[in-house]
Amino acid sequence: MPEFIFHNPTRIVFGKDTIKYIGAELKRDGRKKILLLAGGGSIKDNGVYEKVTKSLKDNNIEWIEHWGIRPNPVLSKAYEILQSIKGKEIDACLAVGGGSVIDTAKSIAAGYYLNDIWDAYDRKIEILRALPIYTILTISATGSEMNQFAVLTNESLKRKWNIASDFLYPRVSIIDPLVQMSLPWTQTVNGAIDAVAHIMEYYFTGTSELTTMSIDEALMKSIIAMTDRLMSSPNDYTARANLAWSATLALNGLSGAGLKDGDWTSHWIEHALSANYPDIAHGAGLGVIFPAWIKYMKSYNVVTFSTWAKNVWGTIDVDEAVNKMKEKIKKWGHPVSLEELAVPENMFEQIALNTLEIGHVGAFKEMEKEDIISILKLAA
Amino acid sequence: MPEFIFHNPTRIVFGKDTIKYIGAELKRDGRKKILLLAGGGSIKDNGVYEKVTKSLKDNNIEWIEHWGIRPNPVLSKAYEILQSIKGKEIDACLAVGGGSVIDTAKSIAAGYYLNDIWDAYDRKIEILRALPIYTILTISATGSEMNQFAVLTNESLKRKWNIASDFLYPRVSIIDPLVQMSLPWTQTVNGAIDAVAHIMEYYFTGTSELTTMSIDEALMKSIIAMTDRLMSSPNDYTARANLAWSATLALNGLSGAGLKDGDWTSHWIEHALSANYPDIAHGAGLGVIFPAWIKYMKSYNVVTFSTWAKNVWGTIDVDEAVNKMKEKIKKWGHPVSLEELAVPENMFEQIALNTLEIGHVGAFKEMEKEDIISILKLAA
Repeated sequence: MPEFIFHNPTRIVFGKDTIKYIGAELKRDGRKKILLLAGGGSIKDNGVYEKVTKSLKDNNIEWIEHWGIRPNPVLSKAYEILQSIKGKEIDACLAVGGGSVIDTAKSIAAGYYLNDIWDAYDRKIEILRALPIYTILTISATGSEMNQFAVLTNESLKRKWNIASDFLYPRVSIIDPLVQMSLPWTQTVNGAIDAVAHIMEYYFTGTSELTTMSIDEALMKSIIAMTDRLMSSPNDYTARANLAWSATLALNGLSGAGLKDGDWTSHWIEHALSANYPDIAHGAGLGVIFPAWIKYMKSYNVVTFSTWAKNVWGTIDVDEAVNKMKEKIKKWGHPVSLEELAVPENMFEQIALNTLEIGHVGAFKEMEKEDIISILKLAA
Repeated sequence: MPEFIFHNPTRIVFGKDTIKYIGAELKRDGRKKILLLAGGGSIKDNGVYEKVTKSLKDNNIEWIEHWGIRPNPVLSKAYEILQSIKGKEIDACLAVGGGSVIDTAKSIAAGYYLNDIWDAYDRKIEILRALPIYTILTISATGSEMNQFAVLTNESLKRKWNIASDFLYPRVSIIDPLVQMSLPWTQTVNGAIDAVAHIMEYYFTGTSELTTMSIDEALMKSIIAMTDRLMSSPNDYTARANLAWSATLALNGLSGAGLKDGDWTSHWIEHALSANYPDIAHGAGLGVIFPAWIKYMKSYNVVTFSTWAKNVWGTIDVDEAVNKMKEKIKKWGHPVSLEELAVPENMFEQIALNTLEIGHVGAFKEMEKEDIISILKLAA
C-alpha cells in the first residue's frame, strides 16, 4: 500500500431542500458579490434558480449571471465569460448545474488570475490562486462538486483536457437529490456510468489497498443498484440520494486512497472521442470504451480483475463480468458499441493519436497507439 | 435519508516512513514553537520520538515536552499540563501517541483559551477557539486523528465524557502503519473492537442510507479480516495499513453520513464502566457491552440488524451473528463477559446511573436505568 495524502476541505451540505442555505453559506464566508454560472435554463424550469436567487437576496449577496454552458463544456465559453468579467470585482464563483457548469466555474475561478487558463490545461503553468468556488449540484456524475479537477474542451485543438489543483476544491457544495428527480433518464444513466468509471480507474490498479478496494466495490454496487431502482421509479428519493452520495464519493479522494493516480486510460480515450464528436455524452462514451479496456487489460492485474468480477458481478470469469456490465448498460437503454455512437473504424487512428497528445497514458501498461486502436476495435 | 453536512478538513499523510514529514508540515503552516505530548515512553523505544524530534530540529521548530498521558486519559493530567504551560507562548499542540494522547492534546488545545476545560465537557460552554492540533498516530483505534471529538475522565466525578467541536479537527495527522508493528496484540485488538464499535453506533440506526451502510459493512469486514491476519502475522504490513485506514474512516464522518448522530448507548455504558474501573481498556469494555446491546435492541430496527447479520457475519439470524462476533472476540483472546472483567452484578445499578448522568442516551429508544441494567445483565 503506497504512501498517500488524503485532504479534502470541501464542505458538503446534502439533503432535501438544502439549496436555500447557499446565501447563508456565502455570507458566513464573507462573500459580497459573486459570479453565478448556469447551463441551458433547466434550473429556471425546476425552481432551482428561484431558490438560489431568493437565498442570495435574503443574505444581501449581489451577483452577475452568465448562462449557456453546454455539456462537454468548451474553452471558448470560458474565455467569453472571463472577458466579460474583466475588471469587475467579484469575490466568488457559484456554479449552479452539473459537471459542465462546475468545471467552467473552476476554469474561470483560476483563469481570473491568469493570462490564459489554457496554459494551465496545457501543463505550462501551475495554478497558484483561484476565486473561491461554490456549487449547487443538479446532476450527480463528475464528482467535481467535491474534487480538485476540471475538464474543458479546446475546440480548435480538439483537446478535452483537465486541470488539477488544491485551489479548485469547492468551498461549499450543496447536493439536493430532489432536484435530480426531473432529470431525463439518459442523463441519470450517463452520470451513473461516469461515477462507476471513476471508481474503476482507481480500483483496477489496486493490489494490497484492500480497504479502499472494498469501499470501491460497495460504491460500484450501490450505484448500479440505485440506477436499477430509478429505471422503474424515477421519483424514488432513497435511490436518488444514495446515487448522488455515491457519485460524490466516487471521485473525492476516498475511492483512490492508496491507489496513487489510478489509470485513466478509458477516460483519456473517451475525451479524445468526444473532443472529435462533441455530441457524444461523456458517460455514453465511457460505457462503450471501459468494457473494451477491461477486456484488453485483464491479464495485467489478474487477481484484481477477477475480484471485481466476483464481488461486483457475481462471476469468476472476467469476460462474463464484462458481458454482464454491457447487458446492464443495454438494459438501461445506452449504447455499448462505437457503431451505435456512429464512430467509424477509419477514425480510430485519429482518436488514438489525439488520446496520446496528453503525454503518458496508462498505469500498469504504457499505452501506445496500437494499444488504443486495439481497445477501440474491441469497442467497435 | 436525512439532511447531513460532511466537512472534514484534516490532512492525512499516510504510509511507511512518513513521520519524517512532521517538521515540514508544521513549518508550512508557520508554526514555530509547539507543545509535544506523549504517553508512557514507548515512542522512545520504537524510534518514533527520535524521528519526530529530528524532523522538528531540521525545520527549526522549538518544542516543550510533556509525558505520562495514560490510557483512559484523565482530566487531572490535562489540568497539570495546562498549568505548566500557562503564560508560555506556543502556537500548536503535537500529539505523538494514540487516542489518549490525542484527546489530551485536544483538551489542552481548547483549554488553553478557557478558564476550565471541564466546563466544555460539562456542556456549560461551547468551544470557540483552540490551538492548532497535529498528530502522529501510534495506535489505530479512536479515530481521533481525523475527527472533532475528545474523551477524558474526570476522576473525582467518575465521568468519562466527551467534547465535540470543529476546532478539534487536527490540521495534519501522520499515520505510519509501520510503527504499529510493535504493538502488543491486546492493544491491536482493543483498537479493532473500538473501530468496529464506532461504525456500529451509526450503522444500526440506518434504514435508507444504503451507500453509507454498505461502506460501513465494507469497513467492518475489512477490520475483522485484517485483525485475523495480524493474529497470525503481526508484521503483515498490508494488514496493518488497511486496519489503520479503516479505523480512521470508522469515525471521520464517512461511516455516519446521513445517519444523524448515531446511537452511542454502548459507548456511554462503556464510559461509565471504565470511569468506575479505569483499568478496563475501552476496546475490551466495548467488546463485552456491544453484543449485549445488540441482543437487547434487535427488535427495534429489525431489517438493519438482519442485514448486518447477513452481510457481515453470513447468517440471517441476529443472535447467531452476535454469537459469531463473541466467538471472534474470544478467538482474539479478549473478554466477552463482565465476569471476565471482574465487574460484579451489584455494581450494575451504579454503572447505569453513571451512564445516564450525561443526559439523553439512545437513538431509537430512550434508555432508562432498567434498560441499561438489562443490557449489563445480558453482558454479565
